[in-house]
Amino acid sequence: MQLTVVVVPGEEENKKFAAVETIFNALCEFGLLRREPIIAIGGGCVLDIVGFTASTYRRGVPYVRVPTTLLAIVDASVGVKCGVDWDHPTAGGLKNRMGAFYPPCAAYLDKSFIATQDERNIVNGMGEIMKLALVRSEELFGLLEKHGERVMKERFQVNDGVDDRIIELSIQIMLEELGPNLWEYRLERCVDYGHTFSKILEMRSEPPLMHGEAVNIDGFFCVVLALKRNWISIEVANRILSVMRALSLPIWDAACTQEVMWKGIVDGTEHRHGKLRMPLVRNRIGSYDFANDVSEAEIANALDAAMSILQIAHTKQGAKTK
Amino acid sequence: MQLTVVVVPGEEENKKFAAVETIFNALCEFGLLRREPIIAIGGGCVLDIVGFTASTYRRGVPYVRVPTTLLAIVDASVGVKCGVDWDHPTAGGLKNRMGAFYPPCAAYLDKSFIATQDERNIVNGMGEIMKLALVRSEELFGLLEKHGERVMKERFQVNDGVDDRIIELSIQIMLEELGPNLWEYRLERCVDYGHTFSKILEMRSEPPLMHGEAVNIDGFFCVVLALKRNWISIEVANRILSVMRALSLPIWDAACTQEVMWKGIVDGTEHRHGKLRMPLVRNRIGSYDFANDVSEAEIANALDAAMSILQIAHTKQGAKTK
Repeated sequence: MQLTVVVVPGEEENKKFAAVETIFNALCEFGLLRREPIIAIGGGCVLDIVGFTASTYRRGVPYVRVPTTLLAIVDASVGVKCGVDWDHPTAGGLKNRMGAFYPPCAAYLDKSFIATQDERNIVNGMGEIMKLALVRSEELFGLLEKHGERVMKERFQVNDGVDDRIIELSIQIMLEELGPNLWEYRLERCVDYGHTFSKILEMRSEPPLMHGEAVNIDGFFCVVLALKRNWISIEVANRILSVMRALSLPIWDAACTQEVMWKGIVDGTEHRHGKLRMPLVRNRIGSYDFANDVSEAEIANALDAAMSILQIAHTKQGAKTK
Repeated sequence: MQLTVVVVPGEEENKKFAAVETIFNALCEFGLLRREPIIAIGGGCVLDIVGFTASTYRRGVPYVRVPTTLLAIVDASVGVKCGVDWDHPTAGGLKNRMGAFYPPCAAYLDKSFIATQDERNIVNGMGEIMKLALVRSEELFGLLEKHGERVMKERFQVNDGVDDRIIELSIQIMLEELGPNLWEYRLERCVDYGHTFSKILEMRSEPPLMHGEAVNIDGFFCVVLALKRNWISIEVANRILSVMRALSLPIWDAACTQEVMWKGIVDGTEHRHGKLRMPLVRNRIGSYDFANDVSEAEIANALDAAMSILQIAHTKQGAKTK
């Protein structure tokens, strides 16, 4: 079978309309038939770009997702969202502002791709898995706590099936959450955990954070918000922080200023139609509730608390490793 | 109530991604909420541009269609299609190549807008109405035959309700045809009548044909194709031609060369997934069948026949008007 290959660069910095244009022109040149599938092979950014292009070509042609990263296997390949970032002349980069809900005709998942990834990219994928564990599954969290380091070190190619279980459980949760709300008629979505501050963090951080990294930093800040609201105990917060650290998940970035975090709240409120609907862990790991009334003062206090917790944690970890 | 108004130029030449970009940036600046509707007021091109922009902003925000032309009332406002033309670097303008199937949350139709239109724009709208009559409704064709000239002269503001009946019947046919096949899973569509050659005619004609004009020229050429196949009698063909002439519908253009018409067949086959599926009138007005086996020789013969018919018709009409 003869294939026509179009190579587009991945990574967030290339997830722009210009990439859509490149693929779109290639489809015109190829003379793609109306029901002829495009096969998108790559990480989440490539899948997002190709998916959005497919959604617009002749008002929609079929496409297949073949994720080649851990993050894309558990995140971009599940559900129907695609899109690109939008560079506004004055407002700058706006994450996923242009896109579509457009289902692929198939998604083929092969975890052997993960063996080709470097450590940072595997950590990146773990950011989304951790998110799912925090709001939906103490079982998944337990697996990360007990086996996460080993599974990551072996790049999801272990023999006891724990790696498969982690991927399966993550996808299962995604399907359970996305399936009944595929078009997001309901804007209260627990899978939005870690997706309130991360959008702007991804756009503003220098050097740029990867998606899963930003999601985890957002996710840790939300742990602090939950702690300060007394939605979770200090024991729960410490347990989460300790697993995040063990898995080398980033928990802070210089871009986490009050101005940026508050902008995250303002943007998130706009995106979720005038109500924040921000999921936070409540009571225990695997359980959540929505916060709608976060003030700038609460953000400022949580930032102080996070800094303070991180210093303590640093000291503790420093003491431990000695 | 305070409205933020964004003005974009209409007409086919402006139905491009640049217009989407303009509106998209305005939405970013406005800070549109996720469920806040955009109201699109204009002709078909404006509705198409705004609809496509709405489909992509935050992966879809609601929009309302308010058509201000006869053509948009009976065509662009019904159904879920939107989109823009695409300028390919070498292939040139590709009609509606980028778009989406994206339903508006409402469409408000007010025929008093038609009173503001000039004759050419009303003729333009009649092109799509004639199309619907030819494939689906001898009743509608009869109304056009008997009352069309008067209704057009009065710009659809007559007192006996014939204008309303023409609009209602057109929309009813559109709903019957589009409703059960809204996402075009089935590519055999009788509403594609007049939409095989017209796409390229619109892009290639100089001065540019309007959409309904191109549809009628395509529609007349399809009458000749049907006649030469013996799918319709010469009496039926003459009756159609005579009403088209009475309503001042254009039936020919200098762009109708063998090369262009054959390109229409090739493009149409690509668009309809490798099979032409071109509706032609068969047996009687209001009845159709699909042609899948049109050769370049058949196109050439039909072009000769069309030229010959038009010369005869010209003479007849010339004789009549003396």
